[in-house]
Amino acid sequence: MKIYGDKQSGNCYKIQLLASFLKIDYEWIDIDILAKETYTADFLAKNPNGKIPLLELESGKCLSESNAILYFLADGSRLLPSDPYNRAKVLEWQFFEQYSHEPYIAVARFISKYLGIPANRKAEFTAKQAGGHKALHVMNQQLHKTPYLTGNSISIADISLYAYTHVAHEGGFDLSPYTAILSWITKIKSLDNYIDMQ
Amino acid sequence: MKIYGDKQSGNCYKIQLLASFLKIDYEWIDIDILAKETYTADFLAKNPNGKIPLLELESGKCLSESNAILYFLADGSRLLPSDPYNRAKVLEWQFFEQYSHEPYIAVARFISKYLGIPANRKAEFTAKQAGGHKALHVMNQQLHKTPYLTGNSISIADISLYAYTHVAHEGGFDLSPYTAILSWITKIKSLDNYIDMQ
Repeated sequence: MKIYGDKQSGNCYKIQLLASFLKIDYEWIDIDILAKETYTADFLAKNPNGKIPLLELESGKCLSESNAILYFLADGSRLLPSDPYNRAKVLEWQFFEQYSHEPYIAVARFISKYLGIPANRKAEFTAKQAGGHKALHVMNQQLHKTPYLTGNSISIADISLYAYTHVAHEGGFDLSPYTAILSWITKIKSLDNYIDMQ
Repeated sequence: MKIYGDKQSGNCYKIQLLASFLKIDYEWIDIDILAKETYTADFLAKNPNGKIPLLELESGKCLSESNAILYFLADGSRLLPSDPYNRAKVLEWQFFEQYSHEPYIAVARFISKYLGIPANRKAEFTAKQAGGHKALHVMNQQLHKTPYLTGNSISIADISLYAYTHVAHEGGFDLSPYTAILSWITKIKSLDNYIDMQ
């Protein structure tokens, strides 16, 4: 199978990290977002929404949305519980990530790391801080109760949230008040087959 | 089971519509967002992210995020395919909804319908239009190919996207160029046990 992505993107890193944990082989195809390579006719035929990461199976079937890809690849593994309620809790965290976390933390990081906070995006960068801290607070509360977001063992919910949380400082977020998040980051980094974002 | 929600919210309507299709009984508890009823200590104990809809099971267990609730309630029914790839495609559309559709169409509708487009949010309202049309275009392309978003029969992907799409005009979106979306709306409205947003 093929993964189309950008190695600086946390959404793409989620898939690389999962594949490493589960020892899944894949071919990586580099896509340059800033050069609009997700908007070529070929790419749009695979994902009409023009976004990475994108998974292409050997059959030619495609799947987009990082969290849907994680779900598909982790199905049947220890990283996705089979009990319906626990599985729905994993999805709850993944939807939380896409609505309440990524639009603040990943976007602030993009404006800062990729664009260098240009004057015309300074107000937007500042406006992202409150929402990002709210999301970090919600995660920190849960991680004070359980070692991983959905309980005692790691799931794709943790992989989803780890991707942009562990580089949140690049978006201007100081993680030092979030002690449970810091322990969780250390714990994930120490797992077998962990790989860093490149 | 109990559903906490606001009847004007499309995210809450998703759950009502699914429950009607599947004839699921529940107790409805009205929550006033503007009066900050999602930020009481009681509510935050059920959902630390302070959002509706919220599902509370008889066991006391809670589940938030509209699309995770749909997934949980539809599991095992005709509205959620059991094949792993098809199931992941349903999730792909649900993540698309939360990231590429709802933040434009639902937020524009909120600014217009709930707030009456106050002067300090006029620029934001206008900025939401391009992203909303992009999402409508992606849906319309798919609905030209298949009667429902994931194929020949309705799934929770359609329920997720229907909620804010069928009231997109309230956010300033003219649906008339999107003929496949209009047919799909008509088809959904004609299904047995369909209920309108109240």
